Amino acid sequence: MTPASQPARPLPVLRSVEDIRAQVAAWRGGGLTVALVPTMGALHDGHLALVRRARMLADRVIASVFVNPAQFAPHEDFDRYPRDEAGDAAKLASAGCDALYAPTVRGMYPPGFATAISVGGPAEGLCGSFRPQMFGGVALVVTKLFLQALPDVAVFGEKDYQQLMVIRRFTRDLDIPVRVEGLPTVREEDGLAMSSRNAYLAAGERTRVPELYRSLIAAADALARGAEVDGVLTAVRGRIAEAGFGTIDYVELRDAETLEPVAAVERPARLLAAAWMGKARLIDNVPVVPAG
Amino acid sequence: MTPASQPARPLPVLRSVEDIRAQVAAWRGGGLTVALVPTMGALHDGHLALVRRARMLADRVIASVFVNPAQFAPHEDFDRYPRDEAGDAAKLASAGCDALYAPTVRGMYPPGFATAISVGGPAEGLCGSFRPQMFGGVALVVTKLFLQALPDVAVFGEKDYQQLMVIRRFTRDLDIPVRVEGLPTVREEDGLAMSSRNAYLAAGERTRVPELYRSLIAAADALARGAEVDGVLTAVRGRIAEAGFGTIDYVELRDAETLEPVAAVERPARLLAAAWMGKARLIDNVPVVPAG
Repeated sequence: MTPASQPARPLPVLRSVEDIRAQVAAWRGGGLTVALVPTMGALHDGHLALVRRARMLADRVIASVFVNPAQFAPHEDFDRYPRDEAGDAAKLASAGCDALYAPTVRGMYPPGFATAISVGGPAEGLCGSFRPQMFGGVALVVTKLFLQALPDVAVFGEKDYQQLMVIRRFTRDLDIPVRVEGLPTVREEDGLAMSSRNAYLAAGERTRVPELYRSLIAAADALARGAEVDGVLTAVRGRIAEAGFGTIDYVELRDAETLEPVAAVERPARLLAAAWMGKARLIDNVPVVPAG
Repeated sequence: MTPASQPARPLPVLRSVEDIRAQVAAWRGGGLTVALVPTMGALHDGHLALVRRARMLADRVIASVFVNPAQFAPHEDFDRYPRDEAGDAAKLASAGCDALYAPTVRGMYPPGFATAISVGGPAEGLCGSFRPQMFGGVALVVTKLFLQALPDVAVFGEKDYQQLMVIRRFTRDLDIPVRVEGLPTVREEDGLAMSSRNAYLAAGERTRVPELYRSLIAAADALARGAEVDGVLTAVRGRIAEAGFGTIDYVELRDAETLEPVAAVERPARLLAAAWMGKARLIDNVPVVPAG
């Protein structure tokens, strides 16, 4: 049989803290390193790229699938967030993942749960202003996943760039002994950043949304060549409004590491945007590297 | 030379996260288990009892000494809190401690630090009402110490009973892989709970403060025999006011585990009090076990 025709072996599914700790301990006992890829499921090629990257960074890879209620506000899409564990497991197996960790909400947040984490700094502004509940919820669940599995390394996508910087921040601040790696955004052929929430787009909307990425790329190029920041950001807003985006939550230039607002590109920066197309809130971001 | 006349060997002092991780890794590499005893220094026999208990629970014991600015409000006694590292190190060595971890404030909270932890449940009410900054600061520094050292077990005194319950809560909630052990309060001969803050007492005050413990013991006995709760708590307030305590922050009966208020002793409870004598805020607590 050729490798291509081999059926993927069934992926072990871990449900509890005890399960994941036993699995990691068994691997470590054999001298193996472990990577964790935390996800909310509804996996696409972007997630699978994280798994493949994780395979290069460690001997064994666990992907977690957990739609984390703590990071959704009551009016947000927790209930309708897409869920497909069987499909996710098949995709993970095909990408070379070694185990799926899918804990229950009750297992993660049992009765009496009373602890919260808040992050300032990189969590301030941008999505932090529009989804004030999100980064505290992300910090809580990622801290728990890190401390449950204690992997050597964890891999996150740069599509959620602010989230990545927030995770780096609290991981360092709390001295969590896990290395955090970011991976550049995986895109559709027309440039749209892959996202589970793209499923919310109607067909007529899908053809218009790549303009978000195109306008960010053009703006980053102009900024790198020294264009005046406010004018460039205004132009991005104009282009994406014209493409049919409704509410534009933000288009902002920030320091690439601290995410502090910057008025000029003197060191690596990041251009970030969030805007609504119909029922889908899309986010994207691109690097801005000073010329020369 | 007899053991009693042997000079204690100098205690290794660890200053950085790298130091403590290297020390713990070296011990673990040799198959040894590790206990941590977090303190704010100004050590007394109560702390040394924690170290001796830790020695029984693990092969090696690290005591940390760090006066944690995050758990003091601006008006509190952070600046005048007693500090004596050399004296602390000598006491720890004599109690069989294997290393002192004394990080710097800058090492624990470097520029850009942006993460906070808050705890509800057992942190609500009691000292949480009078020192609203404290338990968040305790949660932050203990989480950091736990994740820096990753000991098998950590030992805390029941003198700070609410703190012990808060530490158990967030350690469980965040899945921190450290076992938390409590040790009964160590007392002076006249019953006063040992505390670094007893140093704030004037000589004339020192003779009066044991009445706090005596009144709690008498009340716990009455409660265990079925006395009406409000009447007993009022009697405690009367006795300690008469002994010369000024402001009484609280005298309360709580569930021994959740610290929820209880109106009757139907399962193990805890009677807790905080009151001021001159410049010293003293706290104490005793178990209340239902009779029969």
